[in-house]
Amino acid sequence: MTELMGPDELEAALRAIGAERYHNRHPFHALLHGGKLNRGQVRAWALNRYFYQSIIPQKDAAILSRATDRNFRRAWRQRIVDHDGGEEGDGGIERWLRLTDALGFERDYVLSGEGLLPATRFAVEAYLHFVRERSLLEAVASSLTELFAPAIISERVSGMLANYDFIDRQALGYFDKRLHQAPRDADFAIEYVKREARLPHQQQAVLRALEFKCDVLWAQLDALYHAYVVPGHVPPGAFRPKEVSS
Amino acid sequence: MTELMGPDELEAALRAIGAERYHNRHPFHALLHGGKLNRGQVRAWALNRYFYQSIIPQKDAAILSRATDRNFRRAWRQRIVDHDGGEEGDGGIERWLRLTDALGFERDYVLSGEGLLPATRFAVEAYLHFVRERSLLEAVASSLTELFAPAIISERVSGMLANYDFIDRQALGYFDKRLHQAPRDADFAIEYVKREARLPHQQQAVLRALEFKCDVLWAQLDALYHAYVVPGHVPPGAFRPKEVSS
Repeated sequence: MTELMGPDELEAALRAIGAERYHNRHPFHALLHGGKLNRGQVRAWALNRYFYQSIIPQKDAAILSRATDRNFRRAWRQRIVDHDGGEEGDGGIERWLRLTDALGFERDYVLSGEGLLPATRFAVEAYLHFVRERSLLEAVASSLTELFAPAIISERVSGMLANYDFIDRQALGYFDKRLHQAPRDADFAIEYVKREARLPHQQQAVLRALEFKCDVLWAQLDALYHAYVVPGHVPPGAFRPKEVSS
Repeated sequence: MTELMGPDELEAALRAIGAERYHNRHPFHALLHGGKLNRGQVRAWALNRYFYQSIIPQKDAAILSRATDRNFRRAWRQRIVDHDGGEEGDGGIERWLRLTDALGFERDYVLSGEGLLPATRFAVEAYLHFVRERSLLEAVASSLTELFAPAIISERVSGMLANYDFIDRQALGYFDKRLHQAPRDADFAIEYVKREARLPHQQQAVLRALEFKCDVLWAQLDALYHAYVVPGHVPPGAFRPKEVSS
């Protein structure tokens, strides 16, 4: 029998999952911010990660569509605004595309999803299916990786600026914004989860949901590492930078 | 504008996809049948591949549930019988579990899915979602990897028997059956696809569906290779054989 936790105990258990499984602990992250990747590898990362960014508003809309509380919806919809922007040329997705621009990709190619690693697509779509199919509580809990985002973002930005001459501050504009947005979003979500997970099985579901989301992020870096760090493993049909041999 | 192909031209295009993208071309397959893996690595393969096997009847039931033609359903339902068996202790899934038995796994552990690579789960569930969400024609076309199965199966069985003293013929009973079932299933599906894909956009959808399915199989071997061949990459929470360092 699993015991009921107090709200702070639940928060501590969630933070312990992040400490063990968040993708700042992945070797690809260390290579990326440590300046150990070549331009082709950084391009592969930005291209694949774009697909993750691109579905975030659909993910948040799925959550919105299932929420019955107006106050909840009012707070949550800001996430969609942040990612899609107030007007053409604005928003988090647009800022990510400035990074892929800076890395020399044609926008049409990035938007087409053509060169994506299949594993990126499978992991990201698993996230979409999860928020559509599981309980609202689990869907909200799966967003809690944002609790751990500020640390990885600062590490990533300073590391990439220091180490890659093909990336400047402007290309990393996405992360500047997220430094403020992620904590606001994470605060709201953790308060919700602490308040709504009132039964042991709900608390367990919340913990499993965060593990699932850590897996989604981790699997994306696993796939990048396999395809673009170890030579010879780019899967058929995926983006093949000239720096990476087949 | 894409041109309409004749049925045989369509079949040739499908076979060309298999020749390029079927997972018999994956380096993990070469290691597996070439006797280059240790017991822990073969165990990881059998454990993860079990999850793929386990959803096949759900996949086929999804196809069955969308088919309006009684003759089609009558033929297709045999796939479910083959995998689930006529009675307890029979069928393809059971035969796969005899392989995981022979490799020293507790059945409860295998059935629980606990030690699975998240990437296995994401790829396999992507397949389930595909057959549920795409057209019936695409769902049928995605089964066409069975056109290429007999070759890989014979290679796998003879290679594994020759190279691994911890595996015997009986443990590989799954594959003996599939040698006869796969061609029968593939013949039915390829005839269906050649008959029903009558417009260029349908033929293109059929080709993309087979590519998608090749990606599903390829991504599973990518994940196994990354986690269990290159040392140090087992993701958090996944099966950790004693032969593989963390």
